[in-house]
Amino acid sequence: MAKWVYLFKEGKADMKNLLGGKGANLAEMTNLGLPIPRGFIVTTEACTDYYNSGKKITDEIKNQIFASLKILEDEQGKKFGDTTNPLLVSVRSGARASMPGMMDTILNLGLTDAAVEGFAKKTGNARFAYDSYRRFIQMFSDVVMEIAKSKFERVLDEIKEKKGVKYDTELSAEDLKDVIAQYKVLYKAEKGTDFPQNPADQLIEAVTAVFRSWDNPRAIYYRRMNDIPGDWGTAVNIQAMVFGNMGDTSGTGVAFTRNPSTGEALIYGEYLINAQGEDVVAGIRTPLPITRLEQDMPEAYKEFMRIATLLENHYKDMQDMEFTIEDKTLYFLQTRNGKRTAPAALQIACDLVDEGKITKEEAIKRIEAKSLDQLLHPGFDVKALKAANPVGKALPASPGAAAGKVYFTAEDAKVNHEKGERVILVRLETSPEDIEGMHAAQGILTVRGGMTSHAAVVARGMGTACVSGCGEIVINEEAKKFTIAGNTVKEGDYISLDGSTGNIYIGDIPTVEAAISGNFNRIMTWADEIRTLKVRTNADTPADAANAVKFGAEGIGLCRTEHMFFEGERIHKIRKMILSNTVEAREEALNELIPFQKGDFKGLYEVMEERPVTIRFLDPPLHEFVPTEEDDIAALALDMGLTVAEVKAVCDSLHEFNPMMGHRGCRLAVTYPEIAKMQTRAVMEAAIEVKKEKGFNIIPEIMIPLVGEKRELKFVKDIVVETAEAVKKELNSDIVYHIGTMIEIPRAALLADEIAEEAEFFSFGTNDLTQMTFGFSRDDAGKFLDSYYKGKIYESDPFARLDQEGVGQLVKMACEKGRATRPNIKLGICGEHGGDPSTVEFCHKIGLNYVSCSPFRVPIARLAAAQAALNNPRG
Amino acid sequence: MAKWVYLFKEGKADMKNLLGGKGANLAEMTNLGLPIPRGFIVTTEACTDYYNSGKKITDEIKNQIFASLKILEDEQGKKFGDTTNPLLVSVRSGARASMPGMMDTILNLGLTDAAVEGFAKKTGNARFAYDSYRRFIQMFSDVVMEIAKSKFERVLDEIKEKKGVKYDTELSAEDLKDVIAQYKVLYKAEKGTDFPQNPADQLIEAVTAVFRSWDNPRAIYYRRMNDIPGDWGTAVNIQAMVFGNMGDTSGTGVAFTRNPSTGEALIYGEYLINAQGEDVVAGIRTPLPITRLEQDMPEAYKEFMRIATLLENHYKDMQDMEFTIEDKTLYFLQTRNGKRTAPAALQIACDLVDEGKITKEEAIKRIEAKSLDQLLHPGFDVKALKAANPVGKALPASPGAAAGKVYFTAEDAKVNHEKGERVILVRLETSPEDIEGMHAAQGILTVRGGMTSHAAVVARGMGTACVSGCGEIVINEEAKKFTIAGNTVKEGDYISLDGSTGNIYIGDIPTVEAAISGNFNRIMTWADEIRTLKVRTNADTPADAANAVKFGAEGIGLCRTEHMFFEGERIHKIRKMILSNTVEAREEALNELIPFQKGDFKGLYEVMEERPVTIRFLDPPLHEFVPTEEDDIAALALDMGLTVAEVKAVCDSLHEFNPMMGHRGCRLAVTYPEIAKMQTRAVMEAAIEVKKEKGFNIIPEIMIPLVGEKRELKFVKDIVVETAEAVKKELNSDIVYHIGTMIEIPRAALLADEIAEEAEFFSFGTNDLTQMTFGFSRDDAGKFLDSYYKGKIYESDPFARLDQEGVGQLVKMACEKGRATRPNIKLGICGEHGGDPSTVEFCHKIGLNYVSCSPFRVPIARLAAAQAALNNPRG
Repeated sequence: MAKWVYLFKEGKADMKNLLGGKGANLAEMTNLGLPIPRGFIVTTEACTDYYNSGKKITDEIKNQIFASLKILEDEQGKKFGDTTNPLLVSVRSGARASMPGMMDTILNLGLTDAAVEGFAKKTGNARFAYDSYRRFIQMFSDVVMEIAKSKFERVLDEIKEKKGVKYDTELSAEDLKDVIAQYKVLYKAEKGTDFPQNPADQLIEAVTAVFRSWDNPRAIYYRRMNDIPGDWGTAVNIQAMVFGNMGDTSGTGVAFTRNPSTGEALIYGEYLINAQGEDVVAGIRTPLPITRLEQDMPEAYKEFMRIATLLENHYKDMQDMEFTIEDKTLYFLQTRNGKRTAPAALQIACDLVDEGKITKEEAIKRIEAKSLDQLLHPGFDVKALKAANPVGKALPASPGAAAGKVYFTAEDAKVNHEKGERVILVRLETSPEDIEGMHAAQGILTVRGGMTSHAAVVARGMGTACVSGCGEIVINEEAKKFTIAGNTVKEGDYISLDGSTGNIYIGDIPTVEAAISGNFNRIMTWADEIRTLKVRTNADTPADAANAVKFGAEGIGLCRTEHMFFEGERIHKIRKMILSNTVEAREEALNELIPFQKGDFKGLYEVMEERPVTIRFLDPPLHEFVPTEEDDIAALALDMGLTVAEVKAVCDSLHEFNPMMGHRGCRLAVTYPEIAKMQTRAVMEAAIEVKKEKGFNIIPEIMIPLVGEKRELKFVKDIVVETAEAVKKELNSDIVYHIGTMIEIPRAALLADEIAEEAEFFSFGTNDLTQMTFGFSRDDAGKFLDSYYKGKIYESDPFARLDQEGVGQLVKMACEKGRATRPNIKLGICGEHGGDPSTVEFCHKIGLNYVSCSPFRVPIARLAAAQAALNNPRG
Repeated sequence: MAKWVYLFKEGKADMKNLLGGKGANLAEMTNLGLPIPRGFIVTTEACTDYYNSGKKITDEIKNQIFASLKILEDEQGKKFGDTTNPLLVSVRSGARASMPGMMDTILNLGLTDAAVEGFAKKTGNARFAYDSYRRFIQMFSDVVMEIAKSKFERVLDEIKEKKGVKYDTELSAEDLKDVIAQYKVLYKAEKGTDFPQNPADQLIEAVTAVFRSWDNPRAIYYRRMNDIPGDWGTAVNIQAMVFGNMGDTSGTGVAFTRNPSTGEALIYGEYLINAQGEDVVAGIRTPLPITRLEQDMPEAYKEFMRIATLLENHYKDMQDMEFTIEDKTLYFLQTRNGKRTAPAALQIACDLVDEGKITKEEAIKRIEAKSLDQLLHPGFDVKALKAANPVGKALPASPGAAAGKVYFTAEDAKVNHEKGERVILVRLETSPEDIEGMHAAQGILTVRGGMTSHAAVVARGMGTACVSGCGEIVINEEAKKFTIAGNTVKEGDYISLDGSTGNIYIGDIPTVEAAISGNFNRIMTWADEIRTLKVRTNADTPADAANAVKFGAEGIGLCRTEHMFFEGERIHKIRKMILSNTVEAREEALNELIPFQKGDFKGLYEVMEERPVTIRFLDPPLHEFVPTEEDDIAALALDMGLTVAEVKAVCDSLHEFNPMMGHRGCRLAVTYPEIAKMQTRAVMEAAIEVKKEKGFNIIPEIMIPLVGEKRELKFVKDIVVETAEAVKKELNSDIVYHIGTMIEIPRAALLADEIAEEAEFFSFGTNDLTQMTFGFSRDDAGKFLDSYYKGKIYESDPFARLDQEGVGQLVKMACEKGRATRPNIKLGICGEHGGDPSTVEFCHKIGLNYVSCSPFRVPIARLAAAQAALNNPRG
């Protein structure tokens, strides 16, 4: 017979998977001899069993619960539901990973109409007893029976008003009896039955409710945001009640052993006299700072500090604790490693190392890599933010806070930025033509597009705040205004965006600049000593590249050459190339682009010095470059000596049903080899010139995108080699260069052994590979992915966190096949996933040489790579 | 040292891969003691070596060629380039598979200014010698030096005119000397050098030209059409010349041992007196029927018939032979199994079995499965077709011949068809709304769309001729006219289409109906006895299903339920469903559809009786159903009580960037479970009713499309099961049903082991799987695939012939993984590839249970399955 229930004393801290974090820590504290109310834990496996049994708790599990309850009764000398000395318990969730506030808690369970009388008599405190019962009815009805809490609060408020009191502590026992009577009426009206008077039923219903709460929408959302698997389940902690609401010698509070905002090594927390746990959170009365306890109850405070220090030393990390003082006696109800801001995380980690409590390696493991994002981007002024209410929320596409005047075109954004204004660019969706306006903007807001839309990718590259896919907005770009939640925002109005949360505010909220501390550099240095995976960056401009180098990038893993084509007169030349209908005319137009492209590459080489730079050849379909505005079309027609109709006809002919699966990537080089020739010439001339001018030993890496077949790569490679060799001869250079390919088409992964015969390196383009492997486009998936999260079909966004089972299977296969043919092949990843910690760990595990991510994610990747190395030592 | 050159006597018939078909048969005939001019073969491996060596023939190969030439000189008692008794040779290509007319031939090689004098003297026939030389100059210049043949023909014509003669046989030796002199001037003007006078150079240049011809565009095209790999290469046959142009006791001809058009068992062929091979083809003089030879040269005829019979008996198949009579002596220059029409193929196969020459199994192997298409569709009257010239050519999207009046809308096509007209529907591209007009049409012509476009798929299903993707056409649908190659075709004008070749004709070419012979049924019966793979059909209507059953379909592998939604009032109801914004309103609209959908399914079950019927749930994105015409939008708005703007807004909101990778397939059922409920109800009620009414034991198979994850399938399956069980209970039925899925997303193949836990069957949707695996959309790939064929990157259309290396790898993986979890899982394929013989063989090899294809391809699949079984006996 399986063991589904553990007494606290049967567990310990390392049984988190089975007992949940809270349960394991309660067990550990119990065994440390700390003042913990006794109790027991229904395991996470019981939760899984509940879901596998058609959402039923089996009799076997019920029997074990009641057997443990019997032991608890004996320990406490009380009886569950007893009319003279009733045992009351709390029922609380506790998953493996801490999910604060996501699931449910019920206190004072075991009270009934009969038991409350005995409880009042036994404690000699009728007011306390009825207060406990009304709290229980309220919580049970809300959490277990799903009757809106507000309905009960309304009853309570009415009675307080009638009595002319402000706080519920001012209500008498008789008042509370009234409350209870009305609560019970309310309950019956809502549910059609009386409030349950059998404590055993109450208990099983409560346990069921906790299990059920594992799958409530906010828990599902939280898990998705925090990469917590849906099949872990939650444990349930059933614990004898202690009471902070027994009068003025009682109280309850929460505290951290260090400051969770700054990391300062001083106790931090607050408490309420004569209260139960939920009152602290509810904010009805203002809690007191924990240090006040020293005056109010010096003995309790001394004991509290002793145990707090003991717990931090035991767990070797900053602790987040809940405690209750019942008539001057201190009890701990919970401890866990505390959540903290990124600056605090760095401070605490460094301090703990300096205090000799943990090693550098442990310090590295402690810091949540994703949280570093906070350090590198401006944030809102905390006080100002508190006063502001968001009018909408969309996807947090690129972190950081931004405030400025709204403009609806890239041109307007640019012009007004140049006038010295702070600017927010608002667009239906951005296109590569908007690049200059995006550069000028403090923040970008789009109506359409997901976390990997054009706006999101470019904004992250630049470190600009971006909120994308805000479907609530009704935009009128011509009229230069939009509406959101009933507010109309016109050109020039101020809005503020939080790219880390996706919140949108009306008005100008002050921001504070990012400030990188010495702790940051210390931690990064430790991470670099530990990690084996290299970290490169995706960067298209010298400015992005310089930023990335500052953040520790060791090379460029992806330079998207097409991003260079949109600025100024270049776009015009590209359009001329597209409109040419002979090879000669195309070559002529392309030749005019060489100086620009070469200049770009020289800039990159100069910034990157001898670090590797991988340049991807033209990737997007040509229709992304053609004009859509009448003016631009007319100008182009004039310049080309064509009619407007002719220009439009060419643009129309470029229309594609599924552009993502269209004429793009190396397919362009196969049909227009002259494009690859031009780009090769620009790369090679730039490298040779910088090598001569600066003395850097530059080894260009040319990357052919969207390859699906060895002969396709060979075809383009032959063009590249022919041109490169010609340039070398012309410039009398013996420069070395490498040619490789993106692996971003499933077929390329399947045939990677053949492709590796022609490729010196693979770079996994996991954005496209994810799209093709799942068969959905990242731009369209928004329409249904929410249903998939709700239905627990997918637990995370496969465009943010690499799908290791499916897409990862292809990546792994391609690595193995590629190495089979070319053992020393260089392997990297340059999709958006390169900056995601779980993906970085996967890349480490399958033995990639590097990950490449946007500049602002480089520190995340460095830290994640170090964590991966610690968790998965190679070989 | 590798052996690159074989004397004829060193080879035999089964060395085709090395010696090519022609070479192997010349070797075989030599060893049979037949009158074959001696010679030798440069192997196909030498051709491959040529391409691998940067298009150079190595010295080793050259040395072996000259060594064999030396042996030939000795055998013939002549010397190459000799001025008294020169050896002349022919140089001809010969690939493994016969590619008639695709590659090049050079006759009379070895003649020079000096040698021709000796040749004249030795033969005592100056006219003949100079005729041979002028022929050689002409052929060599054309084939090796790529000087247009027409330029030489113009010279010859001028001289004939000057001399007042009609045929070149009427020119004297002196006239021919003039011709040669002018040819040499022409050659020098074109190439800047004199015509080569070194026979060894001539020979190596000629061999090079044959190797080069392997990659000429028409050869690449032919290989693609006939599934011939590009790396096979061609052999080169070098053979002592014999001369049919030595005077009136000489001649040359081609003949078949049976009639290649009808299969009739009578010799069939033609010959020309005093001529060389190319004259027969050129058609300058009218050849004589082979039977005339009996009168003209009875001895030669007798010998010819003896050998022809011997060859047919030896090869046990109808032979296609080339022969030359040099001064009354008969020589055979080639024999091969003759190409034949499909009716002839059946006739010959049956006759050979009846004659006891081959077994049924051999007969089955002999028939090209693809050719059966010809039997099932109308063709043009052969004589009328000869008089017609195509004005354009596009994709042969659905076979058969059609002629009728042009209409530009489905409605016009329907109305005029009902008036009794034969109608051709011409559209920019078809959409599902056009279905009724497509049904009414004799043939369909589209400007856009590939072999698997909507028009192509639907037309093949109906057996209607279709030519698609005709980019040459400029269409004006509003003005109801189009232009092609300078011709304007207006509504009501006659055009004719050949869906088997892609040819487009102006005017009304008479067609002849398909007539299925007894031979067909005999062969199909044999095939059914042999094959182990089942053959189902893709059919959406009872009419299609009935047709397929007639062609031998054993079930329906794919019923696309959405095709039922476009007719009449159904489309209106679907649109109401799409415009509904509550579950209840959607359910109401869907409930109105149940009777229609149920009726459709009942019709299918009644036709199919107890054969399995797999019904795929709704697949296309909803925007395919919304109206695009203003009238329809207005009508819908009126009916729904909405404004036109509101209806348009909903339609716009359904826009997708990449619809192929959008909100479709089971994703619709995840977001709108009510759709799956409606379809389940219709399927189950139909099955139960037909079971009760007709007594058939019907076991519905419900197929969930576009699954990429086990939990996704489970989610939809749960809905289906719940509804199905409810229907069973309501109707008091214990009917059995199966639920399976399409495997058409790469991720589904990668995780097929997990998916098989929920799926009772897999059906490979290789259209989508090909798109996702290659990362290109079938609708857009047309823009670049031609460059890929030209660049030898892809050799065949992956949407027509399954890509076994890439997509096939996924299919195979999914079969293995699926069986690992569910050993008895039923496996089939229902993509367009299901009717392609090479794909059928692949499916047999990997052990699928069935293939499913459009009704008219069922016989092809049956035959191909039998051939696969013979070529790859299982286990």
